[in-house]
Amino acid sequence: MTTKIEHILLYTGLRLVEDGCLLIRDGAILYAGERSGCPEGAQGVIDGKGGICMPGLCNAHAHAAMTLLRGVGSDLQLQEWLQQIWPAEDRLNGEHVYNGTMLAAMEMISRGITSFADQYFFMDDTARAVVDSGMRANLSRGIVSTGGNDEQKLQEGVRLFEDWNGAADGRIKVYLAPHAEYTTTPDLIHRATRAAARLNTGIHIHISETPREVEECRQRYGISPVRYFEREGMFEVPVIGAHCVAVDDEDIAILARRQVKVVHNPASNMKLASGVAPVTKMMAAGIDVALGTDGVASNNTTDLFADMKLAAILQKGFLMDPTAMPVEKVLHMATRAGALAMGFENVGVLEAGMRADLLILDKDAPNLTPSTDVLANLVYAAQGLNVRLTMVDGKVLYKDGEYLTLDKEKVLFEAQKSAHALGL
Amino acid sequence: MTTKIEHILLYTGLRLVEDGCLLIRDGAILYAGERSGCPEGAQGVIDGKGGICMPGLCNAHAHAAMTLLRGVGSDLQLQEWLQQIWPAEDRLNGEHVYNGTMLAAMEMISRGITSFADQYFFMDDTARAVVDSGMRANLSRGIVSTGGNDEQKLQEGVRLFEDWNGAADGRIKVYLAPHAEYTTTPDLIHRATRAAARLNTGIHIHISETPREVEECRQRYGISPVRYFEREGMFEVPVIGAHCVAVDDEDIAILARRQVKVVHNPASNMKLASGVAPVTKMMAAGIDVALGTDGVASNNTTDLFADMKLAAILQKGFLMDPTAMPVEKVLHMATRAGALAMGFENVGVLEAGMRADLLILDKDAPNLTPSTDVLANLVYAAQGLNVRLTMVDGKVLYKDGEYLTLDKEKVLFEAQKSAHALGL
Repeated sequence: MTTKIEHILLYTGLRLVEDGCLLIRDGAILYAGERSGCPEGAQGVIDGKGGICMPGLCNAHAHAAMTLLRGVGSDLQLQEWLQQIWPAEDRLNGEHVYNGTMLAAMEMISRGITSFADQYFFMDDTARAVVDSGMRANLSRGIVSTGGNDEQKLQEGVRLFEDWNGAADGRIKVYLAPHAEYTTTPDLIHRATRAAARLNTGIHIHISETPREVEECRQRYGISPVRYFEREGMFEVPVIGAHCVAVDDEDIAILARRQVKVVHNPASNMKLASGVAPVTKMMAAGIDVALGTDGVASNNTTDLFADMKLAAILQKGFLMDPTAMPVEKVLHMATRAGALAMGFENVGVLEAGMRADLLILDKDAPNLTPSTDVLANLVYAAQGLNVRLTMVDGKVLYKDGEYLTLDKEKVLFEAQKSAHALGL
Repeated sequence: MTTKIEHILLYTGLRLVEDGCLLIRDGAILYAGERSGCPEGAQGVIDGKGGICMPGLCNAHAHAAMTLLRGVGSDLQLQEWLQQIWPAEDRLNGEHVYNGTMLAAMEMISRGITSFADQYFFMDDTARAVVDSGMRANLSRGIVSTGGNDEQKLQEGVRLFEDWNGAADGRIKVYLAPHAEYTTTPDLIHRATRAAARLNTGIHIHISETPREVEECRQRYGISPVRYFEREGMFEVPVIGAHCVAVDDEDIAILARRQVKVVHNPASNMKLASGVAPVTKMMAAGIDVALGTDGVASNNTTDLFADMKLAAILQKGFLMDPTAMPVEKVLHMATRAGALAMGFENVGVLEAGMRADLLILDKDAPNLTPSTDVLANLVYAAQGLNVRLTMVDGKVLYKDGEYLTLDKEKVLFEAQKSAHALGL
């Protein structure tokens, strides 16, 4: 099946094409460019008139099922917040996780997010939701060493890899996920790293989210989490490093040298009062920083358009430099860098040979008029709800308010029911 | 004409009513509370099923016509940015200002913003757009002393007051608007203050937006802008003070004692790299801080839902305190505080005796499910595009994507045309 998307203002991630066109066969982009040069032979045509087409957004750090915990424990100190979150999480079962992930998928799809990296538990149910929703995802079973059963959790992560890595036509990748320095032991880090190396996969982990985490790590090991992970050999495998807020110059040099895929989560970092990650400095050091929403318990929505704007203006305001974090860098962060962080090499740019993960948004919406600077509009003025079409792997998942893979009423109903079952 | 809005989850600004109802006659709220207690006798009924009804958002600092300049000069140093803005502004005429304000009104109405405070020029045309769109506004002719004709501009401001103050059934108020300390003379401040006192109106002015502005004021007068304005007597009349980013404790004490209506513009302050206003400290000192979008050339959209979230998480992240700026304070800032700043005493709370400026948004939207904490959802998860109905002074302006006072296609077309005419 070959599909043509035409009459679009096309932003491929590398260039802007005024009267653009995409030709897609079996989920792969055959042609991206001027409409006049587009090969013939499409069976299906999507008329994108009045639309801007760009790479789908890549949400490189999330806990999708936590959508069920939206709004729980707002405006509280971390410890009090966790004391509201934990009892609810204790009641979670696989069905809840499936329902929460389907709700998250619905929110993401309607905002042009085409892929996400998830670290949580009951991950088979998350994987089922990825298959059913049609999204692309990097999944991992989060492991904490408390309770003495971390080997069992690690084996669950390995089993998740064996069952799901490469599934759904390659839309699912599986990483291993020791949770963070402060929730694991050096021994677990060694075992997880060895397992990841053996499986030829990577690790998704929280790194230096708060100054307090770094301080406590120094008390335990005399060094920062970044130096600790390097010393323990974890950076020998590909790593998605969420947050990296409290990192110093030496940490940044290590992250750059080891090509760690740092994921910036600006909304969560600000809401939880963790601070502003030195993204400008990390990028200058050569780190290909990606963007994430984090879980909905700390964001409280999943809209990377909002987070792109936040990422851009936070760096400007924090560094007192209006030229910091220009739009091209922000767009790269939310698309190609995220895809690469998740290990999807052929995603994040709309050029021939790549997979067709994309969104089309309404160029003529009031908040995008006039369109004097299209890229500035995408970063500073667009909102997720401007999206009118979302496609993953060549398949339309969302169009003009309709979900093609999800039953909206059912997903909302089941999610509400699960939230009630958690005592919320 | 009496209208009933029923089957709503009602947030009046003071309390939450589960099965709520509003009765509205001639733009005034007769009853607000439980549906079961609502008086009979409505001629019209609005079924708000599945909706959350709350006070309309009050945008207390804007330059609406600058919507035409959306996206101009992004990511530049202030001086380079202004050099892109000024030539376009030089070409502005009344028709452009009308068209830009209509576009801004469309964007605001569709996001639940019911009133705004505007400081610009060609303000008769702004006033026409307010009348035509059905919004509520505090309008003022911005005055800079450069060019030696500030008395003429002040007289234009006075004439604007005489022609428009109280117009459109009281929906329009007119203030005077010396632009800022660095763009005016002490003599103009005196004349404007005297004129405002004589007309029994107020002043809308930029105050201490950047550290540089404060530094230059100190070089000129030996004191900060706040102390300077106090010394020159300007705080004898009601003042809308936009920004107040670079204020110290003594400034804050003066602003509190003089009951200056400070307007926080977080998106603009961050994008222009001005810094984070000490809103938590100002509120603790007793200042009733309001919220503004500022002009679209520095925001670049007009969505107070986005700016509510930003205001809340900026204070948390900046102060490293997750309890800073809780949701009730943010909601107050974006509603009642803004109405009071603009001088609309009977706006901003949905209780009997107040004017019916309100919005209804979709409680069951994916990004607002589950609704465990309604107020947290409004601040942290809602977006302007969740709004499905906007009412000003008892009149529906927007419903389910349709504009009842504006011709959407015409407004978009004319705005694009005006943007082209400005050389954009």
